[in-house]
Amino acid sequence: MKSYKDLSKEELKNEIEILEKRYNAFKAQNLKLDMTRGKPCAEQLDISMDILDIPAKELRKAADGTDCFNYGVLDGIPEAKALFAEMLEVNTDEIIVGGNSSLNLMYDTIARAMSLGILGSTPWSKLDGVKFLCPSPGYDRHFAICELFGIEMITVDMKQDGPDMDTVEKLVSEDESIKGIWCVPKYSNPDGITYTDEVVNRFANLKPKAKDFRIFWDNAYCVHHLSENPDKLKNILKACKDAGKENMVYIFSSTSKISFPGAGVAVMATSTENLKGIKKSLTIQTIGHDKINQLRHAKYFKNLEGINTHMKKHAGILEPKFNTVLQILQEELGGKDIASWNKPNGGYFVSLNTLDNCAKEVAKLAGEAGVALTKAGATFPYGNDPRDRNLRIAPTMPPVEELKKAIEVLAICVQLVSASKLLNQ
Amino acid sequence: MKSYKDLSKEELKNEIEILEKRYNAFKAQNLKLDMTRGKPCAEQLDISMDILDIPAKELRKAADGTDCFNYGVLDGIPEAKALFAEMLEVNTDEIIVGGNSSLNLMYDTIARAMSLGILGSTPWSKLDGVKFLCPSPGYDRHFAICELFGIEMITVDMKQDGPDMDTVEKLVSEDESIKGIWCVPKYSNPDGITYTDEVVNRFANLKPKAKDFRIFWDNAYCVHHLSENPDKLKNILKACKDAGKENMVYIFSSTSKISFPGAGVAVMATSTENLKGIKKSLTIQTIGHDKINQLRHAKYFKNLEGINTHMKKHAGILEPKFNTVLQILQEELGGKDIASWNKPNGGYFVSLNTLDNCAKEVAKLAGEAGVALTKAGATFPYGNDPRDRNLRIAPTMPPVEELKKAIEVLAICVQLVSASKLLNQ
Repeated sequence: MKSYKDLSKEELKNEIEILEKRYNAFKAQNLKLDMTRGKPCAEQLDISMDILDIPAKELRKAADGTDCFNYGVLDGIPEAKALFAEMLEVNTDEIIVGGNSSLNLMYDTIARAMSLGILGSTPWSKLDGVKFLCPSPGYDRHFAICELFGIEMITVDMKQDGPDMDTVEKLVSEDESIKGIWCVPKYSNPDGITYTDEVVNRFANLKPKAKDFRIFWDNAYCVHHLSENPDKLKNILKACKDAGKENMVYIFSSTSKISFPGAGVAVMATSTENLKGIKKSLTIQTIGHDKINQLRHAKYFKNLEGINTHMKKHAGILEPKFNTVLQILQEELGGKDIASWNKPNGGYFVSLNTLDNCAKEVAKLAGEAGVALTKAGATFPYGNDPRDRNLRIAPTMPPVEELKKAIEVLAICVQLVSASKLLNQ
Repeated sequence: MKSYKDLSKEELKNEIEILEKRYNAFKAQNLKLDMTRGKPCAEQLDISMDILDIPAKELRKAADGTDCFNYGVLDGIPEAKALFAEMLEVNTDEIIVGGNSSLNLMYDTIARAMSLGILGSTPWSKLDGVKFLCPSPGYDRHFAICELFGIEMITVDMKQDGPDMDTVEKLVSEDESIKGIWCVPKYSNPDGITYTDEVVNRFANLKPKAKDFRIFWDNAYCVHHLSENPDKLKNILKACKDAGKENMVYIFSSTSKISFPGAGVAVMATSTENLKGIKKSLTIQTIGHDKINQLRHAKYFKNLEGINTHMKKHAGILEPKFNTVLQILQEELGGKDIASWNKPNGGYFVSLNTLDNCAKEVAKLAGEAGVALTKAGATFPYGNDPRDRNLRIAPTMPPVEELKKAIEVLAICVQLVSASKLLNQ
């Protein structure tokens, strides 16, 4: 297909005419397609049903004899710790098994630092200003936490191997008010990028000016492969230990997209010293998390192999959807020099970059044709994509037939907006 | 039985000799009895087993069609809201159904006020000082939250009808830094007192100097009766509405001691305006709480009648234990003028007051004989009981036979310490 940039005005006008016809035909269908959030589809949830049918009497006693029906156990029952330690490649004493939401664990971690500081540091709320680095495009809910607490966000570019580490290294070493950085290091949200070993090493060897600087390592998609050759992510906690900086990273994950979104089990992993600090206030916050649900998950999955087997079922459902997206994007947009996107090996998103200053207009047009996308700009701090070009496609929820239509509409909108833009240049 | 105060020195010495023999006989048994926490016993947990055997397929769809296996729903599924609204006598739009811990809801509420303020007020962490009133004896975990956040606690006396309202009214109307008060209004922890209607009315008509003053109404034992004639607690939210102050109260409760401690469902009730404020940050904190567990509870209990029927089974197990405690206390201590206690109509505790300056010594002696009590002083802010006289007895966990021994040991210790004290006066 010919690059749009090589088209004459006449050719662009013809293109627009054809695209408008196609667009209007879809609009006439009164579509109502939702691709806003990375939610598993109903079929994916079906495969976890058996987790909830484990008989009550098997959910009572944990491996160490703990009565899971009663109060107690702040950091998780042994078998849940063992399961997550294996999944995250950490020791069982580097784990806190949480409640139903890793987002809540991250929120709590920031809230705690704001009110109480970290390992004796000044509470962030008592400082003149606190800043976070936000590799972008990134996860809007990370950014929302910073915004709520008045933490200033600094956008850092995402590259094909991870965040722009030159910038990260420079900023954290110079500015003591930079207290953290948000990372989705594997199958990143939304780009689907896995940080290379070199990037992980550079993270572990950061020399932050702030002693209470922490890497928020949201390993949400650690086992969420879409390929027979899954990406491998270097172990950040080990790398930090090797660099003598084991307190510098908080790792988060959950079974939300393994078992049940909103009713799974979340987990946090970090150095034993960090954990000790966290437990001091966690023991005030709660008597403990839901041990019955922990045991349910541990009994069902047993170990990482069990999780991986389960994830293959998810992949079986998701691969055709991702392939649909990629195929249509290629057919509609390939070679036209108006958009770029990744083929992710896992995760929940396809990230689409349009020409500069087109994303909002594309999302608006698509919305008017009944295709809801994550708000353009949402993948950047303050909802502000400086180049207005990134769109996050969440293909998991809709059935393939709907998805086909939605992506076709999206692709038509990208072409329409791009052609109009080039015509009026 | 003769009052200790009427005994001669000789008679006291005789008493002590007899008591020491009994004490040593128990000590020789190498007891290991734990009455530290208000935990249900194993038999109580058995009666909730069926909740966990509801088939998975019945746990999927909420009444409004929500897929409980997927993300979403910040404030609770409709049937859970309805259940708790009935239990707490509030409207369904005055409810947030939470996670597994009402303590966590309370912690979050304070943490939020510290970082973000309440309905636009200055965040408490930005103020020079924040104070809470703490009717005492009270619940140590409430006090621990204040202590963690550096909130100054002011002890207010508990009377037989509730907190000393003259003091409460005076203090809150004079001091703008007083931002809250902790209450366990029904079957209070530890006294087992239910606030009278007059006390509730006086709460609802408080005229706090601080606009962001809130009553933390921990209605933990609202359905936890131990009598055919249960106490009745006046509805505080309604009373506050009648007084034109509906934003002044936060109500908390949970099914922790109805179904599973640590794996039940917690709930918060307050004015719709307060809820709106809370949801603004709650939606940043989490995508939602565990809806599957909400549905499980709603399906099992159905309504307040279902809860009440279930609570009768708990009462059947607990009444003999409370009766054991009260009978032994009466037999050992009755008429001796060295201790006083309440006969609670519900809740989880018997509160024992010794002579002044005896509680720590009693707890120490009992501990040395293998009977662990909640730390003396724990029922007061900063662990400091100014009269050193209150001991919290938690009779629910041990089997009746163990309980008998434990209370006998306790009663012997009270007599020993009292007699020695009177002898040395």
